[in-house]
Amino acid sequence: MRVAVIGVGLIGGSVGMAARRRLGADVVGLDRDPAVLDAALRRGAIDTAVAGLDEIGDVDVCVVCVGVGDLAGAIAAAARALPDALVTDVGSVKRGLDADPPLGNYIGGHPLAGGEAGGVEHAREDLFEGAVWYLTPRPEAEGVRFERLHRFVAGLGARPTAIPADDHDRIMGAVSHLPHVLANVLVGQAADALDGERMPATGPSFRDATRVAGANPPLWGDIYAANRDALLAQVDGAIERLAELRQRLAAGDDLTAWQSEARDRRQALLETGLAGGELAEVRVGVPNRPGVIAELALTLGRAGVNIFDMSLSPSSDNQTGVVGFWVSAAEAQRVRELIG
Amino acid sequence: MRVAVIGVGLIGGSVGMAARRRLGADVVGLDRDPAVLDAALRRGAIDTAVAGLDEIGDVDVCVVCVGVGDLAGAIAAAARALPDALVTDVGSVKRGLDADPPLGNYIGGHPLAGGEAGGVEHAREDLFEGAVWYLTPRPEAEGVRFERLHRFVAGLGARPTAIPADDHDRIMGAVSHLPHVLANVLVGQAADALDGERMPATGPSFRDATRVAGANPPLWGDIYAANRDALLAQVDGAIERLAELRQRLAAGDDLTAWQSEARDRRQALLETGLAGGELAEVRVGVPNRPGVIAELALTLGRAGVNIFDMSLSPSSDNQTGVVGFWVSAAEAQRVRELIG
Repeated sequence: MRVAVIGVGLIGGSVGMAARRRLGADVVGLDRDPAVLDAALRRGAIDTAVAGLDEIGDVDVCVVCVGVGDLAGAIAAAARALPDALVTDVGSVKRGLDADPPLGNYIGGHPLAGGEAGGVEHAREDLFEGAVWYLTPRPEAEGVRFERLHRFVAGLGARPTAIPADDHDRIMGAVSHLPHVLANVLVGQAADALDGERMPATGPSFRDATRVAGANPPLWGDIYAANRDALLAQVDGAIERLAELRQRLAAGDDLTAWQSEARDRRQALLETGLAGGELAEVRVGVPNRPGVIAELALTLGRAGVNIFDMSLSPSSDNQTGVVGFWVSAAEAQRVRELIG
Repeated sequence: MRVAVIGVGLIGGSVGMAARRRLGADVVGLDRDPAVLDAALRRGAIDTAVAGLDEIGDVDVCVVCVGVGDLAGAIAAAARALPDALVTDVGSVKRGLDADPPLGNYIGGHPLAGGEAGGVEHAREDLFEGAVWYLTPRPEAEGVRFERLHRFVAGLGARPTAIPADDHDRIMGAVSHLPHVLANVLVGQAADALDGERMPATGPSFRDATRVAGANPPLWGDIYAANRDALLAQVDGAIERLAELRQRLAAGDDLTAWQSEARDRRQALLETGLAGGELAEVRVGVPNRPGVIAELALTLGRAGVNIFDMSLSPSSDNQTGVVGFWVSAAEAQRVRELIG
């Protein structure tokens, strides 16, 4: 297979390395900085460097890995220049990336992977190993295209999970963007509380809680802006919770139950780990119409089911088909109930 | 030396083990639960178990390690029953513990150490190794008592740091209690955002940011209550910061600079690590009056200086004395400027 990577930084470079070594792909790289392309070639992240979209030629998958601020434009340009390719991206906010009317050959993506240090020199073949990689197909996305992307992402070592773009952004606002905001708030409060005093004050809870404070300022400035609506809702929710707690604390309420509730809810959230062990295939007959595969994948994604692999077999009359989902054997029965 | 530990859980048991093995102390333990005392004896955390304060006899140091809610009463009872002992405690909030008028033989303490699991069965001799152990002497605390406590705490392996009780509580509110509150808020926001969906959604930033969410509900219910005033101020500060951020986000401001500021402030906060390397003694002549030693230690604590050891030498006329502070050689000059 042939893969194009546009923007060859930490993520783009790691996509290239994983695609080359795990999928045997021929990888062509495009970046506005020629020095980055040289470094990518030296590092073995790409096979060929090109200077423009028109030099890419035929590719099966094109992964757009440019900065959040430039993403929508780069996706549209790639989708139009490479009409036969499946175009995807790795941006951490998924709304506002598709064109209007929608680009037929684009499906959004977002791997939950990264590192403290950016740049192709830190790219790694195993960066996506075991990581959730969200896919955000529109409901009318074509099954074959979705399957191609799903297979590609799984081939890089990641765990593809389908989710509607709006849900993705709301959830990322809560589990990633708000934690970054609150980390910054904590740093501000602590700096003021210490009031210029230099003290060996901080225990491990402060270090953990503020590990992401001030992370990569230009990147995070863009992420906050791109996910503004969802983040505003999260900030409002956090303010509301704090105001309620404030009232209870001031009134002298016992907060033990409040603390217990947080313990139970956190446990429930984090219990949804990897389903390990044996895999089983669940096969379902489906009508051959656009969107049916994406709908099924979204249903499973919503239910927390990890799809390890999938296959499509059109019937001879081309009116119906069979889709097979490889899932944890322990979850097979539940999957049958969900989509059977 | 002889040491009493009142309340033999994780912290009390670890104090006992460290005192026995590192200081060769004879440790007597008191706990309202006889089964805990049996376990403490089996674990080697104490030499003798007693059933009441009146059975303790002469001790040099008495460490009160009962729960935050029972602390003030237990400290007062111990200080009165053991007038010749230096009484201290390990509570995470320091206001409201002393009696009125103040107990002459009590000096507050708070080791920044602990563990996920409580109970004497998890006690460890090295629990305090390298940990900051705050001491909160009143300004008029007697130098000899403070020195005894300082030496005892350093002997357990910790790094004693003097700090006024109010500053301690304000700083703990910011670097420990507020992080716990915000972790709970994050869990609530994420649970609502996921809306009952079971998803493998969470990346490492969420796990880190919520590691302490719902920690030990009865303990933390007490801590929030005990530090109510300082925590209310912290919650108000956090709400104010979030409201300001909200306004800037809604107005479409570029938040890159906000992010950069958090990065710089966090770096400055966490840079104040251990001063390593050679030690040097800084000696200062002091008038022989109550409080002078505590004042000096507080001045150094405020400046982030770690006192590795200290010594007191009264002069023959008993009007003046010399106090020696062992500090990092690299900091000796600064220490001379601060207290010389």
